[in-house]
Amino acid sequence: MTAIALGQGPEFDRIRAIAERLGSRAGVLGDDCALIEIGETFMALSTDVSVEGVHFRREWLSLEEIGWRATAAALSDLAAAGASAVGVLAALTVPAAEPVATFSALMDGAGSAVASVGGVVLGGDLSRGPLLSLAMTVVGRTSLPAHRHGARPGDSLWVTGALGGARAALLAWQNGRRPAEGARARFAHPEPRLDQGAWLMAQGARAMLDLSDGLAADAGHLAAASGVSVRIDLDRVPADPAGLEEAERSGESPGTFAARGGEDYELLVAMPAEFTGTGAVALTRIGEVQPGIGACFLLNGAERRLAGYDHFA
Amino acid sequence: MTAIALGQGPEFDRIRAIAERLGSRAGVLGDDCALIEIGETFMALSTDVSVEGVHFRREWLSLEEIGWRATAAALSDLAAAGASAVGVLAALTVPAAEPVATFSALMDGAGSAVASVGGVVLGGDLSRGPLLSLAMTVVGRTSLPAHRHGARPGDSLWVTGALGGARAALLAWQNGRRPAEGARARFAHPEPRLDQGAWLMAQGARAMLDLSDGLAADAGHLAAASGVSVRIDLDRVPADPAGLEEAERSGESPGTFAARGGEDYELLVAMPAEFTGTGAVALTRIGEVQPGIGACFLLNGAERRLAGYDHFA
Repeated sequence: MTAIALGQGPEFDRIRAIAERLGSRAGVLGDDCALIEIGETFMALSTDVSVEGVHFRREWLSLEEIGWRATAAALSDLAAAGASAVGVLAALTVPAAEPVATFSALMDGAGSAVASVGGVVLGGDLSRGPLLSLAMTVVGRTSLPAHRHGARPGDSLWVTGALGGARAALLAWQNGRRPAEGARARFAHPEPRLDQGAWLMAQGARAMLDLSDGLAADAGHLAAASGVSVRIDLDRVPADPAGLEEAERSGESPGTFAARGGEDYELLVAMPAEFTGTGAVALTRIGEVQPGIGACFLLNGAERRLAGYDHFA
Repeated sequence: MTAIALGQGPEFDRIRAIAERLGSRAGVLGDDCALIEIGETFMALSTDVSVEGVHFRREWLSLEEIGWRATAAALSDLAAAGASAVGVLAALTVPAAEPVATFSALMDGAGSAVASVGGVVLGGDLSRGPLLSLAMTVVGRTSLPAHRHGARPGDSLWVTGALGGARAALLAWQNGRRPAEGARARFAHPEPRLDQGAWLMAQGARAMLDLSDGLAADAGHLAAASGVSVRIDLDRVPADPAGLEEAERSGESPGTFAARGGEDYELLVAMPAEFTGTGAVALTRIGEVQPGIGACFLLNGAERRLAGYDHFA
């Protein structure tokens, strides 16, 4: 068995099936990044595919935004590994009838995203296909990689930034409303947290991942990988102000709405108990690591079950 | 301008347009692999996308063969860089209605391909989508990378293996015939030439690339990148015996048929004049590098123009 301990959900069922079938033909699967050790440096690699109609719609985003978003989502895995960015390779599929400018516009967005964190476009491959599809492979480096599996009872749980903005935009579009500008920006233009990921590692982070499926699901993934239970206070979860209007419409508390949002690409991190957050930018303590297994959410002191978000659901 | 000197064809027009738009946001584009220097090691990276209906059809290949072929095509870029394989990251798109076993079968083929050259599956991403699509990113390493741009007048030109087998299979399928078993195997199960690529570098190779578009097109790419002219004797081009039946049907000479075949994933290499081929396995001298620009093909001593193969054509 070559996968790390994986949480629940159909995507992880697929990864488990693949890892079993591959046996020794696979490395360690299931972490945010693959790591390759070269001397004292670890290369961190991750690939992320964005498909039209599944991850985005063309009515919602410009081509540049589609390129930015696909690239930022992949770069976010480097942040979760505590790595700095070297660059990205882009495998793009575009319908045959589209002009050359479609490739260039997608790559313009990809190039801006990778340049925003100090990397470059390293290469790629272009093909025609029935719709837009972007497979972005990011390459980073670090001397001290972060994993999902190091959380221990007694650690505190923290999250960067604010959550729920991307979900608010998605809900608005899906219901025929125009999203609030701030919510739209969170969906269209996520900012991968590479600086914060590296800083958190330097502060002794025990386990880290990026919130692509949403806190409700990803907290369970961190808990499963670490073999611990995590306890999160929903009243403390930082709700994105741009999502509050949709939160109210949904009837959920702001913290619950935020925790159930996916694709914010913020970081969830377990820090040693002595970490106080001094010197941190936009970092909120939301809970604790405990003995046991699974993720437990509290609202006004009472336990709640929370459903996450899965692209295969 | 960040791309190397590129040859002709619509795919290179797209790369040129992208490189211009990206400016300083891109590294060196247009070689077989991107290279990242870490101490005395170069990491070599390449991404290659295979789309159902464009690069293969499901009636032609099993899922395992689709996975092998997509991975071998990407690994071939490592061979062209003279690199050894570390592993592959796979971004797979599969229709939502398909069972989990589809992912596992594709990855089984991918895992066997990468294991055949000493690498492992490093990671990946799974998504649903309208059809099968495989974006394979390979990672290799070398202390001495090969490029396309180092050929000089006076060098000799060599090719590994035999050419035209994959084309013969494709022609047979496209015309409703059952391909010869050997031709089918060349299409379904290409073997990336990593050992030969590394050996050729150790022998002083000046420029190298892998034959994905076919010798007729790729020879022009090597010539353009190196700023030289290449002169290839079609009577010397090693024709795959499995392709001879289709060559006869096409009315082309065996060498011409072989040179116009794509996706054989053999290596084209420019060697210094003093290289004699002693110790080489399945290596054929097919021509010379001369001053000038472009690729020139000779059949029975007379010059011929040859059209290559382009996925965008």
